[in-house]
Amino acid sequence: MIVVVSGPSGVGKTTVARAVVDRMEGVNFSVSHTTRPPRGGEVHGKDYYFVSREEFLRMVDQGEFVEWAEVYGHLYGTSREELERKLRMGDVLLDIDVQGALSVKKLFPRSVRIMLFPPSLEVLKERIRRRGDTPPEDMARRLEKARWELKHYPYFTHIVINQVLEETVEEVCSIIKGERRREFRMEERARRIIWEEG
Amino acid sequence: MIVVVSGPSGVGKTTVARAVVDRMEGVNFSVSHTTRPPRGGEVHGKDYYFVSREEFLRMVDQGEFVEWAEVYGHLYGTSREELERKLRMGDVLLDIDVQGALSVKKLFPRSVRIMLFPPSLEVLKERIRRRGDTPPEDMARRLEKARWELKHYPYFTHIVINQVLEETVEEVCSIIKGERRREFRMEERARRIIWEEG
Repeated sequence: MIVVVSGPSGVGKTTVARAVVDRMEGVNFSVSHTTRPPRGGEVHGKDYYFVSREEFLRMVDQGEFVEWAEVYGHLYGTSREELERKLRMGDVLLDIDVQGALSVKKLFPRSVRIMLFPPSLEVLKERIRRRGDTPPEDMARRLEKARWELKHYPYFTHIVINQVLEETVEEVCSIIKGERRREFRMEERARRIIWEEG
Repeated sequence: MIVVVSGPSGVGKTTVARAVVDRMEGVNFSVSHTTRPPRGGEVHGKDYYFVSREEFLRMVDQGEFVEWAEVYGHLYGTSREELERKLRMGDVLLDIDVQGALSVKKLFPRSVRIMLFPPSLEVLKERIRRRGDTPPEDMARRLEKARWELKHYPYFTHIVINQVLEETVEEVCSIIKGERRREFRMEERARRIIWEEG
């Protein structure tokens, strides 16, 4: 099962995704490739595969990404190899932007796609401000982009409002547990029980 | 949101449904009408509305049931009045047989319908035997009916194998929590956040 956690920049995707993976048995994190330089504490191969722009574009040319996108001047992508490797281990969780989530929908229509919403755009603005990597003159454009991204909610299967982190993590875990019991994912086990005798 | 917990007789529907309603905020139990006499400890208006066959058939004629079915000689039904009253209070959980679940699907295609499976038909047989209300000569027919009911799993949204009660209850609670965050149920709140300013 492929689970996407997405939403506008600053909504808290990575924090939520990391907490869910830590908490849930059988859910593995898909490590993205990126051309963005590491932030403090980020580890190559755990948080991202940090690569040069040249290397990234070579991978694009070779068709090695299932999704990729440019976000505020940096390239991000999920390699087919990473996705397949993690799927062999169990369910896989992708922490990606909205453009990437739309690509995943096209390739994997039965993926679970969770859009994180801020409680309000005002709260999102405050979170972006506190993160400190956005010059005040870029703020309006950034919020307009966030609003544009949120408008893509109909392409998602679930919406979670990230108000209290702990509750958000709980809700995402419940979504995953519930989705594991969807009829089409349980079909093989159901048939085995029905046909075991006779 | 309408949640149906269904499955063959003896699979443990009522035990699971009761535990889920006890545990979850905002989920109310839909009390069925039945012509079956009360078992020990069952309370009118809490477990069932116990009515005569004449009264039940009068209600059928008046179109007062959203679903009803005959199960092993007794009539069971969910009245429109009960369902609407409980829906005004929040989400509602129906503990009904497979025929009833199919009627609910027709009337409420977006309902959440959970089919409980036994771990095996052998285990189901043992559970029915221990319940002690089935003469040995009826057992084969009963199991054939159970298998026929289980084959209707494609009309359900979720399948849960009731192996360990506590885990089954947990899984049904997760399904409900996850379904509350489905995109189409969150649409109004999403739109409010997107459009709050401008």
